[in-house]
Amino acid sequence: MTDSITFISESESAALVDEDLALAAAREAFLATATGSTFPVVIGHAAVPDNRFTLKSGSADDLVGVKIGSYWPGNTEVPRHSSTIVLLDPATGRLAAVVEAATANAYRTAAADALAVDTLARPDSRTLTVIGTGHQARYEVGAVTRVRPIERVLVVGRSPDTARAFATEVTARTGLPAEPAEARTAVAAADVVVTATTARQPLFDADWVAPGTHISAMGADGPGKQELPVALYDRASLFCDLPDQSRTIGEFQHAPSAAPVALGAVLAGDAGGRGSAEAITVFDSSGFALQDLALATALLRRRTHRQEGHE
Amino acid sequence: MTDSITFISESESAALVDEDLALAAAREAFLATATGSTFPVVIGHAAVPDNRFTLKSGSADDLVGVKIGSYWPGNTEVPRHSSTIVLLDPATGRLAAVVEAATANAYRTAAADALAVDTLARPDSRTLTVIGTGHQARYEVGAVTRVRPIERVLVVGRSPDTARAFATEVTARTGLPAEPAEARTAVAAADVVVTATTARQPLFDADWVAPGTHISAMGADGPGKQELPVALYDRASLFCDLPDQSRTIGEFQHAPSAAPVALGAVLAGDAGGRGSAEAITVFDSSGFALQDLALATALLRRRTHRQEGHE
Repeated sequence: MTDSITFISESESAALVDEDLALAAAREAFLATATGSTFPVVIGHAAVPDNRFTLKSGSADDLVGVKIGSYWPGNTEVPRHSSTIVLLDPATGRLAAVVEAATANAYRTAAADALAVDTLARPDSRTLTVIGTGHQARYEVGAVTRVRPIERVLVVGRSPDTARAFATEVTARTGLPAEPAEARTAVAAADVVVTATTARQPLFDADWVAPGTHISAMGADGPGKQELPVALYDRASLFCDLPDQSRTIGEFQHAPSAAPVALGAVLAGDAGGRGSAEAITVFDSSGFALQDLALATALLRRRTHRQEGHE
Repeated sequence: MTDSITFISESESAALVDEDLALAAAREAFLATATGSTFPVVIGHAAVPDNRFTLKSGSADDLVGVKIGSYWPGNTEVPRHSSTIVLLDPATGRLAAVVEAATANAYRTAAADALAVDTLARPDSRTLTVIGTGHQARYEVGAVTRVRPIERVLVVGRSPDTARAFATEVTARTGLPAEPAEARTAVAAADVVVTATTARQPLFDADWVAPGTHISAMGADGPGKQELPVALYDRASLFCDLPDQSRTIGEFQHAPSAAPVALGAVLAGDAGGRGSAEAITVFDSSGFALQDLALATALLRRRTHRQEGHE
């Protein structure tokens, strides 16, 4: 027993994380879904009921722990979201490390969608359409543009102004041409669509989607949430992170008869991915604890590596 | 945002905790049950399925957080149980403190039973019978003897040897006469009975219990666990920590029609306690997160107090 704790603060994890770390951690987490376990998600609240937290826990061979995510909508001085990952020692069950990871969490969520793009989208995908112009959407663009030779970004927002501002920011950050667009045009032109909204109804019509498109949807993570049109599923190959969870709180809650394939099974070679260049592939991300545990482990590893002077 | 964390290690919390702190924290937690919230308990496991953890979360006016309890039965170099309490800042949702509290957890659990004794047992209770001779039972005796003028302790164990050894230890620690006894004799002679076992069937017969007895049962905290005879409930006043939970995983899972009163309601003056000197009172403890959050807060407070030189 020691009197110190292995701890990575929010500012430190924000400085350690990048797309490559998050993508590698996502790959590790998705591969671990085949043999790992995830446990029921707790949705709790503070005395002020609008202030909410979630507990996501899981385990795999060398991972066991909990992610505590919080959302305090009234925060003004500090971010509304925070994330604390608690790792236990798989050998003893004792506290191993605590990692604050609010910024890293945005990379982690984007990395899952990018991993799906990397696994399922056509190799020659050049047009990325992002629906949503919020905080998370920025990270989605950053992650996806690293795994495909994206040449332009179309931005669909609820208002032209926010979409334009977002497009300007994308160009500034990635050097890629980016422009606001109507949903119909942008979806039809896309090789890859990423949705990152809090929508509770479909963001586009199924028949706007061209053959060969890949769609990664990250917004649906609770009852009633929905970004995709159910009619699309008849002519698409369906994938997700955790099938049971996706049918409970993800996109496929709206299509209970859908049988999405776990992305981890595709990565492991146990299931097929894209069948042809004309196939439409859909990936639904609802999030799971192994992503957080793998992320925290990767952050710890990188810190150790840097402290040892390797970078 | 800071780069440090408010952290109390296992060795530090073990040095800070005592019966008084735990009892005061228990009182605070039980009072908070009236307005506070507790959320579904998660039972998870590591890759080795025997290695288990539980997540208990809750909130009250000035408390919000999670207790991660772990049980790694194969541990030999370190204790099999560990406990980590994560407090969030009620104002922002951000990580506020991490407290390791395995030893303190034993005080916390005993304090709940002692609080029930203090609230429900006859003031002149002099004979304490403890059923169970494990690690937790020691803390139960330590806590109960502080709230009533106990003059002797009767010890019921599965073997005469362990009961005798436990009795010797009780005398060494408390100065009270203590002796092993048969369950029937010991229950009949008791003013207060504390059960601290992992039993899955009643430890004694209902008709062995004399009028005026108080019973605190801490063992039942999961499906199938049971320490008390259901027949007792017809002639006893029933209390517990959380009625819904007690009927799900506590003693009252075996008596679904029982309507135990929350001890917090008695403490708050919203419900009656012991009705007469002849009444039999039963308290079932299944454990709840507010106990852990209040305990962690009390440990932090005491540390600050000591650092400021007040003790």
